[in-house]
Amino acid sequence: MTWNMLTLNCDLGESYGSWSMGLDRDIMPSIDQANIACGYHAGDPMIMVRTVQCAVEHQVEIGAHPAYPDLVGFGRRSMSCSHEEIVALLHYQIAALDGICATYGAELSYVKPHGALYNDMMRDIKVRASVMQAVSSYARPLKLMILSTGDLATHQQEASALGLELMLEGFADRRYTPQGQLLSRTEEGAVLSEADSMAQVRQLFERGTVLASDGQELALQVDSLCVHGDNPSALNAVRAIRSLIDSAQ
Amino acid sequence: MTWNMLTLNCDLGESYGSWSMGLDRDIMPSIDQANIACGYHAGDPMIMVRTVQCAVEHQVEIGAHPAYPDLVGFGRRSMSCSHEEIVALLHYQIAALDGICATYGAELSYVKPHGALYNDMMRDIKVRASVMQAVSSYARPLKLMILSTGDLATHQQEASALGLELMLEGFADRRYTPQGQLLSRTEEGAVLSEADSMAQVRQLFERGTVLASDGQELALQVDSLCVHGDNPSALNAVRAIRSLIDSAQ
Amino acid sequence: MTWNMLTLNCDLGESYGSWSMGLDRDIMPSIDQANIACGYHAGDPMIMVRTVQCAVEHQVEIGAHPAYPDLVGFGRRSMSCSHEEIVALLHYQIAALDGICATYGAELSYVKPHGALYNDMMRDIKVRASVMQAVSSYARPLKLMILSTGDLATHQQEASALGLELMLEGFADRRYTPQGQLLSRTEEGAVLSEADSMAQVRQLFERGTVLASDGQELALQVDSLCVHGDNPSALNAVRAIRSLIDSAQ
Amino acid sequence: MTWNMLTLNCDLGESYGSWSMGLDRDIMPSIDQANIACGYHAGDPMIMVRTVQCAVEHQVEIGAHPAYPDLVGFGRRSMSCSHEEIVALLHYQIAALDGICATYGAELSYVKPHGALYNDMMRDIKVRASVMQAVSSYARPLKLMILSTGDLATHQQEASALGLELMLEGFADRRYTPQGQLLSRTEEGAVLSEADSMAQVRQLFERGTVLASDGQELALQVDSLCVHGDNPSALNAVRAIRSLIDSAQ
Repeated sequence: MTWNMLTLNCDLGESYGSWSMGLDRDIMPSIDQANIACGYHAGDPMIMVRTVQCAVEHQVEIGAHPAYPDLVGFGRRSMSCSHEEIVALLHYQIAALDGICATYGAELSYVKPHGALYNDMMRDIKVRASVMQAVSSYARPLKLMILSTGDLATHQQEASALGLELMLEGFADRRYTPQGQLLSRTEEGAVLSEADSMAQVRQLFERGTVLASDGQELALQVDSLCVHGDNPSALNAVRAIRSLIDSAQ
Repeated sequence: MTWNMLTLNCDLGESYGSWSMGLDRDIMPSIDQANIACGYHAGDPMIMVRTVQCAVEHQVEIGAHPAYPDLVGFGRRSMSCSHEEIVALLHYQIAALDGICATYGAELSYVKPHGALYNDMMRDIKVRASVMQAVSSYARPLKLMILSTGDLATHQQEASALGLELMLEGFADRRYTPQGQLLSRTEEGAVLSEADSMAQVRQLFERGTVLASDGQELALQVDSLCVHGDNPSALNAVRAIRSLIDSAQ
Repeated sequence: MTWNMLTLNCDLGESYGSWSMGLDRDIMPSIDQANIACGYHAGDPMIMVRTVQCAVEHQVEIGAHPAYPDLVGFGRRSMSCSHEEIVALLHYQIAALDGICATYGAELSYVKPHGALYNDMMRDIKVRASVMQAVSSYARPLKLMILSTGDLATHQQEASALGLELMLEGFADRRYTPQGQLLSRTEEGAVLSEADSMAQVRQLFERGTVLASDGQELALQVDSLCVHGDNPSALNAVRAIRSLIDSAQ
Repeated sequence: MTWNMLTLNCDLGESYGSWSMGLDRDIMPSIDQANIACGYHAGDPMIMVRTVQCAVEHQVEIGAHPAYPDLVGFGRRSMSCSHEEIVALLHYQIAALDGICATYGAELSYVKPHGALYNDMMRDIKVRASVMQAVSSYARPLKLMILSTGDLATHQQEASALGLELMLEGFADRRYTPQGQLLSRTEEGAVLSEADSMAQVRQLFERGTVLASDGQELALQVDSLCVHGDNPSALNAVRAIRSLIDSAQ
């Protein structure tokens, strides 16, 4: 039996100045990819350095986690930016982390937009075009992490037209619609229990499918699962997923 | 007769969002090095991109012009930052510009701290140590531009201990003390007339010396003259210096 | 013959730190109301103080000109803020200017949202409800300046339900649709020539109407005309409008 | 026997956006004065509103806690600001909180500078003059909270010359020098144990004196003790001090 390769990614380096957020040092040993904040929604230069160093120590792959310029809103508020603005703010944030990585012996390998920029990228073709343009035109080849949905074929076409490689993200603890979208958090059952979440990971891992909200089995191509490490219980859930994956491989 | 090699550097890219500053496009053809703001005192990502593109177009060498994080104070207010803070904020700003340069076919080659950070570097050995540490430990070898003063020998020792190459900056329009420091702006005669300024450039160029405030000739090792392009009259002065240098070479 | 009372308002205090914008001192003598930036899109504390002092000197009424928190975008980018966020960021900015006014012997009398916040207020009932709630719940009674459009009756109902008094703004240099909206800037003829602009002011002044884009006369209730003072030619246009109004009164 | 009146003040509202700091709701019932951050080092508008509402609920007196503009440094880094800059940034922050207080039925009554601005005020007569000028010239009479030291007589003279009323702050958990200054944290014994701290409060309370670092009794005029509420153990210490004071009154 062949398992589907599954990695775990987590948003890290989201402290800022004197404010602390996340259990970065605790979760780092359990993940494969660290999405590191670049200063626009979180992550001042010292935090970025420390997070990169911690990722290096645990041989975790590093991705840039750029955002709209909105510290007080934590990058969670959509902003109507122009194409030129999005490309430039992505280049700036990616470059800042890229150079810090290179300074500390690491290598940046992908980009995962944060918060509202991620959501806007997934639902608005113009924003997605700007993001893809920015990543594919950056100085070095970097992959772009997006949500794997029912529109994946379209997204892959858009990316290949630019010579851009995608990393496909899935969620362990979210229910999918029959169309392969995340069920809105306002809907009942949108967030899975820990047991259902583990079952979903197992099914993705073993069969490359999830159980959609209509009870049907839905094929979903996922390279990396998004996990969270902001509290002890989330940390335990990640460790359980880690064990599941490791025991099978 | 052998002339001393002299280049011209100018602080550029100091606009921000809707606010415009400087006559960047006008002065770019007359200079050799552009010190480009990196977002902490001026220069948002789009301004940085445009300034890099303009420098590329005119084959002007690019330096990072990083500052304390102080937009409203334009980086002109000294801030008591720790060693770790200075190193990290320099790496961040340098990296951001470095990656934007690489994205637009340019290559960053040096660092010149801005405003209060530059002044603190020149008068405080601890700040200078932090700046030198930051530049010399950056991912790629970059030169550091400092003011050439009577303390040059010491500064060169500090730099070589770190394997750091210096670029020595001088001023066309400022009077030097017999000790090779800039005469304080509060002193009479600190800022030279346009005629005296041209004479100082000529003397630096032909003899490698300046006339100090005590009337004595003072040897001063200068690689690059700092010029300004924020108004039409400054622009004319730069063009006159450019002609002087070009006609002799 | 009775003229319609018309005043002139202008956005002022939009410099920031070392960056200068607008010809504030030149236009102040020609206007009746100064909409003063409050630090979120422009206007640091020193600029606010100087602008308030200049308004006091010329006996110009003062309004707060609050914005989304977006310096680099000059408050021109829509941001998806919650009701609670809008109310709080308005109270903060209004209060900051209110206290500065009181400190310098002036009295804040109204609020005019800036840029994207103004546009969002005019087209989105939820944003408008948040703005109206913020202004009407502020510590002291302040008026709210909005655009006078074909929807005025609705807006006045919304305002009176909160006990809020409106100031109705019109544009001298913009063509109106038959529905009393501003013709989009992307449409031909949206921005009036100087002569047409003066004719529109005269008609508003004498008859309380404008010539809409379909050539019909359209009644428009306007308390104050929005004028601009960012360049010498705009300044001349404002002075011509001022003369027209003064000569008739 | 007459006790000296002693109140407790605490820095509050120091969260920012998605970042949380302090146990504000837990400590509020135990204190008399809340020093509320005003947005420059911490405390966005929503946090300010919630903190004011919480203070109102517990009938706690409200003071403005303004700082240098330095979010990432949490206002702990000295910045070389001009007199005009300090006055304006204080007026801005004080006014913002003042108006929010008035909107929520509270009344701002004093100002306590934060972090580096507080330290600069205590050791640099020029900064102190700027702070005193700002508070005394504000729209409404507000008191200024400063550290009670051996230089109190001088500070009181400076304040009365401006008609400014002082609130004198002391520390429960810091050892004083014979000159009435705080013993530097780099010195042994600078920070008191919990038992010594309680003893110091009791002595201040009963005799108006502290035991200085030379073992001598030192008179110290204190109106309010600065306490901290950032962790459960600090919270317990505050509750113990509260009980001590309440049991005696």
